[in-house]
Amino acid sequence: MMDFTTVSGLTEALLAGNRRALSRVISHIENNTDLARPLLAALYPLAGKAHIIGVTGSPGTGKSTLVNALAGVYRQRGLTVGVIAIDPTSPFSGGALLGDRVRMRDLAGDPGVFIRSMATRGSLGGLAQATADVIMVLDAAGFDRIIIETVGVGQSEVEIASAAYTTVVVEAPGLGDEVQAIKAGVLEIADIFAVNKADREGVDRTVMALKMMLSLGAPEKLQMMHHGRMLPVEMPQARSEDNAWTPPIIKTIAVSGEGAAELADAIENHRLYLEQSGGRILRDRLRAATELRMILRDYLLEELLARTPQESLQHIIDAVARREMDPYTAVQRLVHSPAAS
Amino acid sequence: MMDFTTVSGLTEALLAGNRRALSRVISHIENNTDLARPLLAALYPLAGKAHIIGVTGSPGTGKSTLVNALAGVYRQRGLTVGVIAIDPTSPFSGGALLGDRVRMRDLAGDPGVFIRSMATRGSLGGLAQATADVIMVLDAAGFDRIIIETVGVGQSEVEIASAAYTTVVVEAPGLGDEVQAIKAGVLEIADIFAVNKADREGVDRTVMALKMMLSLGAPEKLQMMHHGRMLPVEMPQARSEDNAWTPPIIKTIAVSGEGAAELADAIENHRLYLEQSGGRILRDRLRAATELRMILRDYLLEELLARTPQESLQHIIDAVARREMDPYTAVQRLVHSPAAS
Repeated sequence: MMDFTTVSGLTEALLAGNRRALSRVISHIENNTDLARPLLAALYPLAGKAHIIGVTGSPGTGKSTLVNALAGVYRQRGLTVGVIAIDPTSPFSGGALLGDRVRMRDLAGDPGVFIRSMATRGSLGGLAQATADVIMVLDAAGFDRIIIETVGVGQSEVEIASAAYTTVVVEAPGLGDEVQAIKAGVLEIADIFAVNKADREGVDRTVMALKMMLSLGAPEKLQMMHHGRMLPVEMPQARSEDNAWTPPIIKTIAVSGEGAAELADAIENHRLYLEQSGGRILRDRLRAATELRMILRDYLLEELLARTPQESLQHIIDAVARREMDPYTAVQRLVHSPAAS
Repeated sequence: MMDFTTVSGLTEALLAGNRRALSRVISHIENNTDLARPLLAALYPLAGKAHIIGVTGSPGTGKSTLVNALAGVYRQRGLTVGVIAIDPTSPFSGGALLGDRVRMRDLAGDPGVFIRSMATRGSLGGLAQATADVIMVLDAAGFDRIIIETVGVGQSEVEIASAAYTTVVVEAPGLGDEVQAIKAGVLEIADIFAVNKADREGVDRTVMALKMMLSLGAPEKLQMMHHGRMLPVEMPQARSEDNAWTPPIIKTIAVSGEGAAELADAIENHRLYLEQSGGRILRDRLRAATELRMILRDYLLEELLARTPQESLQHIIDAVARREMDPYTAVQRLVHSPAAS
């Protein structure tokens, strides 16, 4: 009999491949129950083996279907796959039309695939943290490849993408925003470009636009990841290999599965590249720094609120709302008030 | 002679309508110079008069053009307009095709309009905070209407939208994601729907889909804004008027300006509604709480980092990266280490 009420029982069942235990653990984390912290502490040392892949792109690029096809390729190669869908329009997360749901079904019945959607609402930053925790759990549970699907290039997406070792940016011809998407900072986060819907008119123009942008500037992914969004991390002197990776551009037709194997190959190449160049170790440090920053920020805030009387807090919120006090002064007041020290 | 090097000189020039001073002030804030804090403190009491409008929607809905048309209507009505573009694909923020740029030009030459784009990169949360600060500066500078343009319904967008009194969600027929967009939480944040590109096929289907969703559930904007994303705020007992607002659905054709006047009317109705129902005061408190939370979080983190020796920090980041320590334990270590107390 498995005991699903204790940390050791849940951990044991999870490591034995029990999917119900896995779901249970994730629920504990999402709902931040009393078991959440001890579960994370127990599982953390066991993670670190999976290759984590971020797949991002605008709505309409067909990236969910591409994730589906990619997962299929991994399964054919005997690898297990965890999928975390953060895109609210993703069929994985329930925002699907009937056609999509049918397509998802071949994955859904396979015990080698685990799909979880995460709500995009709720606490800013909280989602990024919860995602990092769920990735870790899937990693500890032994999934070989973990795919995180996000929409767009907003900041939360970039923060979530920083959890990935390999980031695939999906474009599609005819969306009319090739140039904008590239300008919006995609170049810096993309390790691989997938031009999906490659049977459509305009695919060559999209590929050309990407090639041109790539020829203009070297990717500065790590620098950007590092800038302002995490704790200061000592960066080892950049080795020449660190800039040796040029994002390949893979044409795909996700609905028919065409190009999915090539995309999987490109991801594996990048994985090997990271291991050989020391890039994986560097990304692990950046990830750790990002995570520490997120957790610290919330912890310190909660700690302060816990020792601030409700009445003083409401008084100060009110004063700021009435513009009798500016918020920066209010923060000083909250931090240095006698009640709060 | 205006003195642009001091807080009082800049503030005076800004209040006199000097646009160069305004740009200068915003730059100080964005770059977080020594003058940033004193400028914010000086201007904060002067703000609170503008009506702040959030305009959000997926890429392809034409919301930038709609913002352009809306600003034009306000100018015809003798109101000054500030526009803050956060959407990376917006022509306002430079991601424009030639046609868009030309369209923007009639606004660009008008001193009653001030357009500022904000980078979507950089610190998570930092953008939301910087946006709140820039809104406040435009407000203090005397702009009657401030429009914030954001893309999508991601969390950062929702947090930014919480700075608005009136949120307009732009939809368009034929994007094939009516249902998803609504599911993704748009209902809760929309005060007004604009169905743009209303000359396109499928517009009635889009309007019908929105009406159906609206008939299913009452908007819970404030509840959602309140949930988990800010400091606890005492909510006055909901008055019956608080739920009396049903988001109107306005059909627009932004390229020709059709429907823009009706949209402006709907926004004005909502503004009056908020004032009469007490909703404005409530939203001011929620805004204050959101802002305090953002500033507090960053302040507390910086304070801790300032008193933590670099060496201990790198040591702990490394231990987490190597999975010798889980991040939650690491946070405890950082907060309670003797060096940090």
